[in-house]
Amino acid sequence: MKGLDEDQIIRIVRSEIGDKGGFVPDDVEVFKQGGIRMAMAVDTMTQGTDMPRGMWMDEVARKSVAACVSDFAAKGVRPEFGSVSLTVPADMSAGQIRRMARGFKAASSEFGVRILGGDTGGGAELVISVWLCGAAAHGIVSRGGAAAGDIIFATGAFGNTAAGLHLMLSSGGRRRPRLGSADRRYVDAFCSPSPRLEFGIRIGRHITSAMDSSDGLAATLNEMSRQSGRRFVVSRLPYDTSLEGFASRHNVSATDLVLFGGEEYEIVFTAPRGSAARICRIAAGCGVELTRVGTVGRESKGGGDVVMESGGVTKAVKDRGWSHLRGES
Amino acid sequence: MKGLDEDQIIRIVRSEIGDKGGFVPDDVEVFKQGGIRMAMAVDTMTQGTDMPRGMWMDEVARKSVAACVSDFAAKGVRPEFGSVSLTVPADMSAGQIRRMARGFKAASSEFGVRILGGDTGGGAELVISVWLCGAAAHGIVSRGGAAAGDIIFATGAFGNTAAGLHLMLSSGGRRRPRLGSADRRYVDAFCSPSPRLEFGIRIGRHITSAMDSSDGLAATLNEMSRQSGRRFVVSRLPYDTSLEGFASRHNVSATDLVLFGGEEYEIVFTAPRGSAARICRIAAGCGVELTRVGTVGRESKGGGDVVMESGGVTKAVKDRGWSHLRGES
Repeated sequence: MKGLDEDQIIRIVRSEIGDKGGFVPDDVEVFKQGGIRMAMAVDTMTQGTDMPRGMWMDEVARKSVAACVSDFAAKGVRPEFGSVSLTVPADMSAGQIRRMARGFKAASSEFGVRILGGDTGGGAELVISVWLCGAAAHGIVSRGGAAAGDIIFATGAFGNTAAGLHLMLSSGGRRRPRLGSADRRYVDAFCSPSPRLEFGIRIGRHITSAMDSSDGLAATLNEMSRQSGRRFVVSRLPYDTSLEGFASRHNVSATDLVLFGGEEYEIVFTAPRGSAARICRIAAGCGVELTRVGTVGRESKGGGDVVMESGGVTKAVKDRGWSHLRGES
Repeated sequence: MKGLDEDQIIRIVRSEIGDKGGFVPDDVEVFKQGGIRMAMAVDTMTQGTDMPRGMWMDEVARKSVAACVSDFAAKGVRPEFGSVSLTVPADMSAGQIRRMARGFKAASSEFGVRILGGDTGGGAELVISVWLCGAAAHGIVSRGGAAAGDIIFATGAFGNTAAGLHLMLSSGGRRRPRLGSADRRYVDAFCSPSPRLEFGIRIGRHITSAMDSSDGLAATLNEMSRQSGRRFVVSRLPYDTSLEGFASRHNVSATDLVLFGGEEYEIVFTAPRGSAARICRIAAGCGVELTRVGTVGRESKGGGDVVMESGGVTKAVKDRGWSHLRGES
């Protein structure tokens, strides 16, 4: 039995809680406390859904923090304080918990976040929820501010995480398969993503919209197109050509890996043409790879409108997201 | 296999994360953001551990918020904003999710908390994490401020929740057993606890220490004794005499239910003798029952030092907490 998917659950919850029409989803929630504008976000990782066997406990801990940091990166806000809730299964050893704790400590220092406390309890599988907050004095970059003629950018290389997950799932659960350096890089991309926090904070004033790409490139572009009410025209995909070799060796489509893989924790954003040079300089300064994915087009009503131009033909990019492990098994 | 208990897990995490000696656990975490002192807390409920069959989904949702509100109540801080993370198993129906969402909505309005957003994903069992935050302009009431001669108070009646859980577990998972009004009250105490938010906020300035009682009366008193470095002398237990009838019918000890049951979400606190009259007036105004549980005694080193006086004999109250469902099965 497959159960309801994430979108269906969110739709039910939202319709009951009362945000019937006015609610616009974003990567972080903004609220005011004592006159200070704050942002918060929570990200949850679940053993059966997000932690393939072969992923180490320190990587699991770090990635659960990184995922939440990435939400802040896309919004140009620095997270400062955090809290962690752990649901721990009975078969988890003291050594594994120790390794997980070290992962939290390392992530806390890597991302400059102070983890203040949390909650711990027993459960059927490991569930980690990380909650972060920070001051958003200048507001946040929305998902829906793209204007006609804006350039669409994406940081990093997409599809590597999906390749890494594919390798881990097909290795039969061994700790980490004996891999060549290329394949190793894919597994590392999945297990140790690098959210673009400094870059996200520095470009905040120069861009018109942005979103964390963790649901996959296609889903991210569609959501931004929907919220902007504009067509997104894709003319280049952000990936390393070596991925094509991987795809043909493993009999999968490189384009599918790039568009629908997910969990890259990159930033997809739009900016006016006039800001492009400055943004490229900032990217170079931060050591962040940048791809001009396409341009923002005409007004568009009713849902995501993302098309890809290829050989003179225009094809819709489906609004399909990242398939979790559980859904594939 | 039983696995590590909550305390062991917390000890490992804490020793690795670095709070080796200086960390003092409390019901909420306090931090400063943009010059504003804020408090936050997270509470997590897990299907197999905290949700016996027969508990309805709206009750589960409400209780997960109530548990976190109770942390704030004990610290005299009003929670204002919240965020919810849901891990949803595949066999949960749309109707159950709808009922859960309604529970969140009702709890949000009952406790005056605005739930801003959250995260949803799939998992092996239902896991709900609720984060709340609020401004703590005047700081918080600590767990460790009790002075010699202070009176120890507890709100409400203890043991009813443990009686309710006993009834639910022994009913074989039917929706809600056919119960008389007394037994029904025990089940309601477990499923629909009432944190003492208004009372907690109003007594904040008049008390010396306080703690949310959710781990059980014995564990709470021991923790407060430990943090205050003082003996806690218990002379009266806060419970309804009708519980004795229940205990003898079900062949359990009423005293055990009261001391070790847990999940009451009451406030245990200490106050100077001179504040007692004022506190009783506030309790009456809030419709909160209050018991003078005992007095704070001499200095005490190394761990919780809680004794109960009974028939001229002094007996140690063990530092034993609430046993979760999973541990009992």
